[in-house]
Amino acid sequence: MKLYDLELSGNCYKVKLFASLINAPLDIVPVDYLQGEHKGETLLKLNPWGEIPILEDGNVVLRDGQAILVYLANKYGGEAWWPSEAHLQADVMQWLSVAANEIQHGPNTSRLIEKFGVESDLALSLARSTRILTLINNHLADKDWLAVNRPTIADCAIYPYISIAHEGGVSVDEYTHIKAWMKRLEQLPGYISMPGN
Amino acid sequence: MKLYDLELSGNCYKVKLFASLINAPLDIVPVDYLQGEHKGETLLKLNPWGEIPILEDGNVVLRDGQAILVYLANKYGGEAWWPSEAHLQADVMQWLSVAANEIQHGPNTSRLIEKFGVESDLALSLARSTRILTLINNHLADKDWLAVNRPTIADCAIYPYISIAHEGGVSVDEYTHIKAWMKRLEQLPGYISMPGN
Repeated sequence: MKLYDLELSGNCYKVKLFASLINAPLDIVPVDYLQGEHKGETLLKLNPWGEIPILEDGNVVLRDGQAILVYLANKYGGEAWWPSEAHLQADVMQWLSVAANEIQHGPNTSRLIEKFGVESDLALSLARSTRILTLINNHLADKDWLAVNRPTIADCAIYPYISIAHEGGVSVDEYTHIKAWMKRLEQLPGYISMPGN
Repeated sequence: MKLYDLELSGNCYKVKLFASLINAPLDIVPVDYLQGEHKGETLLKLNPWGEIPILEDGNVVLRDGQAILVYLANKYGGEAWWPSEAHLQADVMQWLSVAANEIQHGPNTSRLIEKFGVESDLALSLARSTRILTLINNHLADKDWLAVNRPTIADCAIYPYISIAHEGGVSVDEYTHIKAWMKRLEQLPGYISMPGN
């Protein structure tokens, strides 16, 4: 199973983190992002979005970190990480949307601006970061995990860009419930940290 | 089953559209958005995000249009709309992420600015709209449906804000494959249009 990967990408890291938690072997294919390899002919055929991660598993080719988590959990991770029962699955799904929306346009965007010089509205992404971190912190006040009372792909989808939020000028120091949740996740067997962190 | 609803919301419409396609009865509870009812104590208890739609089905309470689609499809819609097999489910999931990310921050945001006077970066949301509509149009060049060769919740998640994109100054006239796909969707038994359209 091949993962087209960029070490600096939190969206790639979430796939590697989850694969490690379920002990699924990944063949890592580093993509030369600075040279624009992700927008070259070969990778655009695999993902017209021009983004990574891309997962290749036999004939299956998938883009989008959240979709890849669903695939890995469904195929290799099992019920624990991605429940099949409707209300439990939808509970996890709520957080996959948060990863694609509020995290992407909050902490992830702040980091793109501050660390990589991407042009975007920093004040807006910082305000979005504060909003979503506050919501998550409140949510975790009486819960150990984001969804269904156990570690799931919800946690794997949300954790990466929070764990490197400081690179975008976003501090999680005041969010005590988030910090406790991160520690719990970091103690799971198979946990790996973001490269460079 | 109760849906806390706003007629003008495409995210509420997607739930009503899908419920109609699978003939699941919804008890519509109109929310007084102008009076800020969605940010009042009662609804914040159901959804701390302060957003609608909210679905209530017995003890199950869900926020987020995509999560509600997953719930309804899993519980009432069946395999056809939300396949359980890993690579098919992940194919649909890719589009649920597009709904939460690129559609939300493209056509949806352009409409919020142009129709409702929300302050945001119009040039950015228009550029994002062009990008995602081009990607979707290319994707549909040789396909009838967004995922797995049949109508699924992927189509229900993406269609609403494209069908009202003109309200945000985004024309779909040039995207012939998107227009053909919209017509196919509009011919499905049980299809209902966005209120006011």
